[in-house]
Amino acid sequence: MNADSIRKLFEEVRRGKLSPDEGVARLRHLPFEDLGFAKVDHHRALRVGMPEVIFGERKTPAQVAGIFAKLARHGGNVLATRADEKQFAAVRKKVRGAEYREMARAIVLQSDRRKYGKGTIAVVSAGTGDIPVAEEAVVTAELMGNDVQHLYDVGVAGIHRLLANRETLVKARVLVVCAGMEGALPSVVGGMVGVPVIAVPTSVGYGTSFQGLTALLGMMNSCASNVSMVNIDNGFGAGYVASLINRL
Amino acid sequence: MNADSIRKLFEEVRRGKLSPDEGVARLRHLPFEDLGFAKVDHHRALRVGMPEVIFGERKTPAQVAGIFAKLARHGGNVLATRADEKQFAAVRKKVRGAEYREMARAIVLQSDRRKYGKGTIAVVSAGTGDIPVAEEAVVTAELMGNDVQHLYDVGVAGIHRLLANRETLVKARVLVVCAGMEGALPSVVGGMVGVPVIAVPTSVGYGTSFQGLTALLGMMNSCASNVSMVNIDNGFGAGYVASLINRL
Amino acid sequence: MNADSIRKLFEEVRRGKLSPDEGVARLRHLPFEDLGFAKVDHHRALRVGMPEVIFGERKTPAQVAGIFAKLARHGGNVLATRADEKQFAAVRKKVRGAEYREMARAIVLQSDRRKYGKGTIAVVSAGTGDIPVAEEAVVTAELMGNDVQHLYDVGVAGIHRLLANRETLVKARVLVVCAGMEGALPSVVGGMVGVPVIAVPTSVGYGTSFQGLTALLGMMNSCASNVSMVNIDNGFGAGYVASLINRL
Amino acid sequence: MNADSIRKLFEEVRRGKLSPDEGVARLRHLPFEDLGFAKVDHHRALRVGMPEVIFGERKTPAQVAGIFAKLARHGGNVLATRADEKQFAAVRKKVRGAEYREMARAIVLQSDRRKYGKGTIAVVSAGTGDIPVAEEAVVTAELMGNDVQHLYDVGVAGIHRLLANRETLVKARVLVVCAGMEGALPSVVGGMVGVPVIAVPTSVGYGTSFQGLTALLGMMNSCASNVSMVNIDNGFGAGYVASLINRL
Amino acid sequence: MNADSIRKLFEEVRRGKLSPDEGVARLRHLPFEDLGFAKVDHHRALRVGMPEVIFGERKTPAQVAGIFAKLARHGGNVLATRADEKQFAAVRKKVRGAEYREMARAIVLQSDRRKYGKGTIAVVSAGTGDIPVAEEAVVTAELMGNDVQHLYDVGVAGIHRLLANRETLVKARVLVVCAGMEGALPSVVGGMVGVPVIAVPTSVGYGTSFQGLTALLGMMNSCASNVSMVNIDNGFGAGYVASLINRL
Amino acid sequence: MNADSIRKLFEEVRRGKLSPDEGVARLRHLPFEDLGFAKVDHHRALRVGMPEVIFGERKTPAQVAGIFAKLARHGGNVLATRADEKQFAAVRKKVRGAEYREMARAIVLQSDRRKYGKGTIAVVSAGTGDIPVAEEAVVTAELMGNDVQHLYDVGVAGIHRLLANRETLVKARVLVVCAGMEGALPSVVGGMVGVPVIAVPTSVGYGTSFQGLTALLGMMNSCASNVSMVNIDNGFGAGYVASLINRL
Amino acid sequence: MNADSIRKLFEEVRRGKLSPDEGVARLRHLPFEDLGFAKVDHHRALRVGMPEVIFGERKTPAQVAGIFAKLARHGGNVLATRADEKQFAAVRKKVRGAEYREMARAIVLQSDRRKYGKGTIAVVSAGTGDIPVAEEAVVTAELMGNDVQHLYDVGVAGIHRLLANRETLVKARVLVVCAGMEGALPSVVGGMVGVPVIAVPTSVGYGTSFQGLTALLGMMNSCASNVSMVNIDNGFGAGYVASLINRL
Amino acid sequence: MNADSIRKLFEEVRRGKLSPDEGVARLRHLPFEDLGFAKVDHHRALRVGMPEVIFGERKTPAQVAGIFAKLARHGGNVLATRADEKQFAAVRKKVRGAEYREMARAIVLQSDRRKYGKGTIAVVSAGTGDIPVAEEAVVTAELMGNDVQHLYDVGVAGIHRLLANRETLVKARVLVVCAGMEGALPSVVGGMVGVPVIAVPTSVGYGTSFQGLTALLGMMNSCASNVSMVNIDNGFGAGYVASLINRL
Repeated sequence: MNADSIRKLFEEVRRGKLSPDEGVARLRHLPFEDLGFAKVDHHRALRVGMPEVIFGERKTPAQVAGIFAKLARHGGNVLATRADEKQFAAVRKKVRGAEYREMARAIVLQSDRRKYGKGTIAVVSAGTGDIPVAEEAVVTAELMGNDVQHLYDVGVAGIHRLLANRETLVKARVLVVCAGMEGALPSVVGGMVGVPVIAVPTSVGYGTSFQGLTALLGMMNSCASNVSMVNIDNGFGAGYVASLINRL
Repeated sequence: MNADSIRKLFEEVRRGKLSPDEGVARLRHLPFEDLGFAKVDHHRALRVGMPEVIFGERKTPAQVAGIFAKLARHGGNVLATRADEKQFAAVRKKVRGAEYREMARAIVLQSDRRKYGKGTIAVVSAGTGDIPVAEEAVVTAELMGNDVQHLYDVGVAGIHRLLANRETLVKARVLVVCAGMEGALPSVVGGMVGVPVIAVPTSVGYGTSFQGLTALLGMMNSCASNVSMVNIDNGFGAGYVASLINRL
Repeated sequence: MNADSIRKLFEEVRRGKLSPDEGVARLRHLPFEDLGFAKVDHHRALRVGMPEVIFGERKTPAQVAGIFAKLARHGGNVLATRADEKQFAAVRKKVRGAEYREMARAIVLQSDRRKYGKGTIAVVSAGTGDIPVAEEAVVTAELMGNDVQHLYDVGVAGIHRLLANRETLVKARVLVVCAGMEGALPSVVGGMVGVPVIAVPTSVGYGTSFQGLTALLGMMNSCASNVSMVNIDNGFGAGYVASLINRL
Repeated sequence: MNADSIRKLFEEVRRGKLSPDEGVARLRHLPFEDLGFAKVDHHRALRVGMPEVIFGERKTPAQVAGIFAKLARHGGNVLATRADEKQFAAVRKKVRGAEYREMARAIVLQSDRRKYGKGTIAVVSAGTGDIPVAEEAVVTAELMGNDVQHLYDVGVAGIHRLLANRETLVKARVLVVCAGMEGALPSVVGGMVGVPVIAVPTSVGYGTSFQGLTALLGMMNSCASNVSMVNIDNGFGAGYVASLINRL
Repeated sequence: MNADSIRKLFEEVRRGKLSPDEGVARLRHLPFEDLGFAKVDHHRALRVGMPEVIFGERKTPAQVAGIFAKLARHGGNVLATRADEKQFAAVRKKVRGAEYREMARAIVLQSDRRKYGKGTIAVVSAGTGDIPVAEEAVVTAELMGNDVQHLYDVGVAGIHRLLANRETLVKARVLVVCAGMEGALPSVVGGMVGVPVIAVPTSVGYGTSFQGLTALLGMMNSCASNVSMVNIDNGFGAGYVASLINRL
Repeated sequence: MNADSIRKLFEEVRRGKLSPDEGVARLRHLPFEDLGFAKVDHHRALRVGMPEVIFGERKTPAQVAGIFAKLARHGGNVLATRADEKQFAAVRKKVRGAEYREMARAIVLQSDRRKYGKGTIAVVSAGTGDIPVAEEAVVTAELMGNDVQHLYDVGVAGIHRLLANRETLVKARVLVVCAGMEGALPSVVGGMVGVPVIAVPTSVGYGTSFQGLTALLGMMNSCASNVSMVNIDNGFGAGYVASLINRL
Repeated sequence: MNADSIRKLFEEVRRGKLSPDEGVARLRHLPFEDLGFAKVDHHRALRVGMPEVIFGERKTPAQVAGIFAKLARHGGNVLATRADEKQFAAVRKKVRGAEYREMARAIVLQSDRRKYGKGTIAVVSAGTGDIPVAEEAVVTAELMGNDVQHLYDVGVAGIHRLLANRETLVKARVLVVCAGMEGALPSVVGGMVGVPVIAVPTSVGYGTSFQGLTALLGMMNSCASNVSMVNIDNGFGAGYVASLINRL
Repeated sequence: MNADSIRKLFEEVRRGKLSPDEGVARLRHLPFEDLGFAKVDHHRALRVGMPEVIFGERKTPAQVAGIFAKLARHGGNVLATRADEKQFAAVRKKVRGAEYREMARAIVLQSDRRKYGKGTIAVVSAGTGDIPVAEEAVVTAELMGNDVQHLYDVGVAGIHRLLANRETLVKARVLVVCAGMEGALPSVVGGMVGVPVIAVPTSVGYGTSFQGLTALLGMMNSCASNVSMVNIDNGFGAGYVASLINRL
């Protein structure tokens, strides 16, 4: 609201250059943002260290490269999710320093390497098929300035593997747990820790796994109270929410 | 934006009672609405002749009567939908002139009887079970100042009854068509007229009618291009949209 | 049960060639069918004039041709549904007289051209997309010895086209009605005739047509009492049931 | 079209009482039905012997009795389905001869006892819970002038009971088969006979029977080609369609 | 009903060339349309300025071009939706003046450029993925003679962008709002205006967006009373309904 | 097939009392069961020790008592599931020795107390709400002659409780595992043992537990290979299958 | 692992009271918890200030009172959710200091009033019907030692009310947003703040709201990246997760 | 727990090389498995004769070959399910003795040919489309050391074929029954035998078969008490469970 344009308005009225009625009329025609709505966006300050993000799926390599290059000029980190090698080839030509994280299917540019997260984020997954989603969460959290530890292939049907790694779990400040099929892992992990767990159902499975719907419903009904969740295969969202929590 | 408070502000700055900076500061603390957001609501002017509405279901007679009486003081029409006779008994004690429309399960207070609609709204329904929903649309449209004609029990399995009444259909400026079970009536009616048809699926039926879902899906897939629709049993919404269209 | 093998058994016991115990033992080892179970199949007599049928989908041209040729040797009519031109090319090399009905996606061999149906079967469809399913019903009914009349593109959103053809409808002894999208046509047709109507939902449509599920639900909830139905896109089944009815 | 009113019109024009233009104008104002639409209904002749029908559910005893008495005056058979004893008590006071079929939950008045069906209709059901639906089909078929045989408690998990009664099955001209739970009976029965089978899914079962949806889906996917079906618990519809077929 | 054929009939009866009975017989054989059913279609007059429409999906370029050319001869506007560039190439060879609107995936021929709509139609969409559907609505409305304004990329998670454009919204006489994912935009827009809003769910999203079903359900449950809706991705239907409303 | 009636037939033919043709005719009229179909039921021998079962839900106390008393006369064990105290009161008057197992909602008569199972059946459940289903499995298995151990309240969100009882789990010859909500317990238990696990989803939960459907889907997608399952809340079925396995 | 029992074991082996083999044997028989599994639960320390919780639904007043009294003896806060006044009456007799929060349908005992949360939790809801769920979140967060601010009746169809309260939103350290019907509110709120938002779908609505499923799907597909969610009507879970985050 | 490492620890404490406190500390740092958790896995002994398994779908030939070769070195049987010929070609180069079972789409290495199963496993299927799933069960059971008999193409619509093979069914110690479409076969087979039946729904069918969901629901609601089931198309799981049962 301390926009110069408004102050100038008042000054002109003060100096008699404008009548009060003219002041009201001018105020009416000022651009929207000047009227205080910048406030709506004032949390942008909180966005320091957050990556600019492109959803790569169904975009051409040229489109991804164009957007990526434009965002890179802002000086912060850039992340393209669901990206393939062809898209990366196009990006690399335009943006020096861009890297491809194959397992996460992500193109990243990490210009800002400061730590914004206060503790460690643990990313846990059940089966090998869940790894791409888990890696998307890992990459997202890393680009947002977090220490990340991953723990893969610790499905509930082999509970001793999970228990053998409980130190990693209990040390984390927030956890992301990815699982397909019956989606039981977040409940078990949730019961082993006392901090927030972000569950991500994955579309791994066949038949009645319904592309992740069964895992989603399972997680939604988790008997552990510290579990909240994001959409199917949404590794990015989980990494994003976990990063916000880890900054608090 | 022509709020007196803003003009006063400019005048005080003009008169030197406030510095420009103080003007900006004061502007910052003015109530939200004074800052132009009345604009967001400036279509309220269009609401002339629209009823104030109460959703009666799961409210006690005392609650309905209390809200009804308070809204009645605004001087406009008041409509309580999904209301029963007990709720009406409570309303009648507080609001003279309130009436109960049994078939529509609605309590109405019609203080403003002007016509706002330019033509006739036809409300059509397929079976006797659909009549409560159709009547809710009728009452809504009447309270919003429309001439309404209803045409009931003209289901598609007896197509001659529908054809026998085609004059009523083609004379309407906008139509509301209610149907349960397979929900086919809006398609047939839509093909017989050249104006907008608002379809309302009803929860009439059993087994695979799924409380109106089958009718909803049928209408959604109507092969007539002039059909749009509202939620299951939402006679109020259909009457409301039809009334808005009839005012244009 | 009058199988020769059983009679011989009794005769051998009579002549003392076998003891009663040996008779019991032999009876135990007779092939299953000789024990009266031919009865289970005795309605096979009713199958005179019914085609042998191959479901072509996901079979190689060689597989279709092989089965087709084998069935053709039985001397009756043969029908391959969901067949493409490549499959037909393979069949034609092995079976003289086989024809391809393109619209029905069917390969037919009509060795037996006698009439088994007593009246006419009318096959009605709503949109151009429904024609392949309707044609499958037509071909099936024709191969089963019926006079068939088809009436296409008479959707409910243009009710006058349907009415203009009501003579065809009321003359039929049994009707097959195919419709996708909202599936309303069987209800309308059902209300116009006094004979059985076999409804076939088709997978025509997009979005919430759910590959025919919406049409199926609509038909299932038809307000016309003379409508029964078969599975989505099952033109063959509809033609088959209609043919059985037309023989009665 | 041979309505007297039209002939009179022509005669008046002939006699010069009306000009041709007046004839056209009069024709325009004749009631709809006189314009040939009786044709739409000309199959009403086929309705001889069909009952007038009332759906009793959610109607008060007074409503059922009122409608029943009015329909009884037409002189034909009257059937109230989904009716309870209270509704029957109300009907009995107004209509002499009305009877209550408890198992079928139906009130019937059988004024016309002629046979319209040519053969026997067999009504088959799987479990004791299916009997009310089966009985509704039985009562419907009886009121429409058919010989009906029922065969209950012959579920597929005890296949020998079904086989022991195969004579009844193969003698029928058309069959109605009711089953809840997995809905497998129509497939087995369909494979044992060569005539049309009308399948009725029932809402018997719990958990994943989904109030008959599982049975419905099972029947819809029957591997027997002579099976068509009606809605869940729709014993009336099945009896009605079977009766239409048995008249052919 | 003032068809010459009927008048001639009366005149011949008048002149004694036909007996009244012959008149009745002739009347019976007149083509259906002459019997007054033109009335069913009499709203065709309202179709002035409406485009002839082809659904391009799953049609060959030759099919689209053939139908397009035939419809073009009627002299009005022609619209092929869901059309690709190959189909356009085929059309362009046959129809001079045909254009391809790439974003809308539409082929258009705009012979009639008169304005039929009285106000402006605003077409609003949430994400870039919704633009093809929105553009289909835009093209449809333009071909039906409307002034159209579009407002894209104003999703609810960045509410200030929507607010910044509220002038465009409140000036419109009717709005089309397209949104995928959670489908929340029509509720927000509906709350900002006092005129009818046609909501279009789009199939944009992944996982539990279920190809637009989630958006559809969200819109169906909109808390804004002035919202009605059409099927998933049905930009054409929304543009069509909006155009009908804008003519009133 | 060694039925006396068949042997007698052969003997009469042998003695000349019947001609071979008469033998064939008689054979045709023998009751179905005599023709070898006893074989179909010959596994009844395996039923020794299995209880006769009544499904109590929706039966009157008089009905349950009547059936129970009749079955009790066979001398074996009798089990009425989903039974309430009123039904038990009625049974107790007719059948001495009948007991009510409140937690299992079951009435039992255990006349035969022999052991038929070779090892122990472990019945495991996750939450207190699952206990009625688990107890139904326990009672069923006990009546079928098994040693049963139960282990309740060992949900996956408190994994250490489950691990603390692993001795009980690994000693069992077959396990029944009941769980509602996300249904994860069978996967974890399945991974801890090397024998068959019968999973039972329960309808415990609210919201998206969908009355057990979520648990069912979760179990269906279990990542443990030794898990098979029965219907929602079907404790009886699980106890029955486990008992059959334990007899092998 | 530093359990006294293990140290004693080593000391006895050291003193020769036990042989090494006896040490191994004893170790084998130590209670499970002594073997290090306390570690699994070592986050219990994090539970300081967390309430003991009872799910009141379907429990008798006596059951609730019994459990409540037992938990109250631990000295911490106790919370019974989904509790009614009868249950509270029973609790009050046993536990001095217990209070009933009517809107939240919760019984609370707040023995520990320390603050554990570092900032404010804002609980936001869309309609009046959502308030019970929102209040459950409020009560939960308060009992876990948080400052809570609530903001009710700020649905998306009246966006200005939400904007007018944006100060409350942007000041919160974590937010809980409850909404039924289309569930759009979390997306809008999520876009206005830079901290984690926990979304709670509520079962408010009718027809296609499917008891909260539509809201759930809408939230799951939120276009705001900082939103995660819990199960339908799970106000407790949302308050619990928000409290865990606010402690970090 | 009798791990040498623990005994050594005690011995060192005994000999005074370690103090008791050092013993506790060392114990804390021993690998997890040494702490008794081998017990969790002690049923591995039961795994003798079980194959190592690879799920081939979506793996490259190189990946399958690599894993296969590594597992083959353990000396036991190896099974790759959902494998194609290209994957087999890659395996064959690395593993001598590997074979491809085309119908089962499985690559097998059968190093251990001992019998572990006590009786015969019968694998039954309804249609030709179910054979791949049935064969997967056959191969799995064979690799786990069982005698297997298969019985294909015995669908319920031709019940006599099933009856003709009842000897095979009643001789089996456990059965696997695969069926698509309506999934009725397990109920019929279950009623014919007295041993456990493992049902496998298959994705065979079209339209409302919903890729096996209809079959799954049908089986879930089987009226035969001896039926439990596994996931859609999960022939491996069925063969695995049947093998476990057959070892008991």
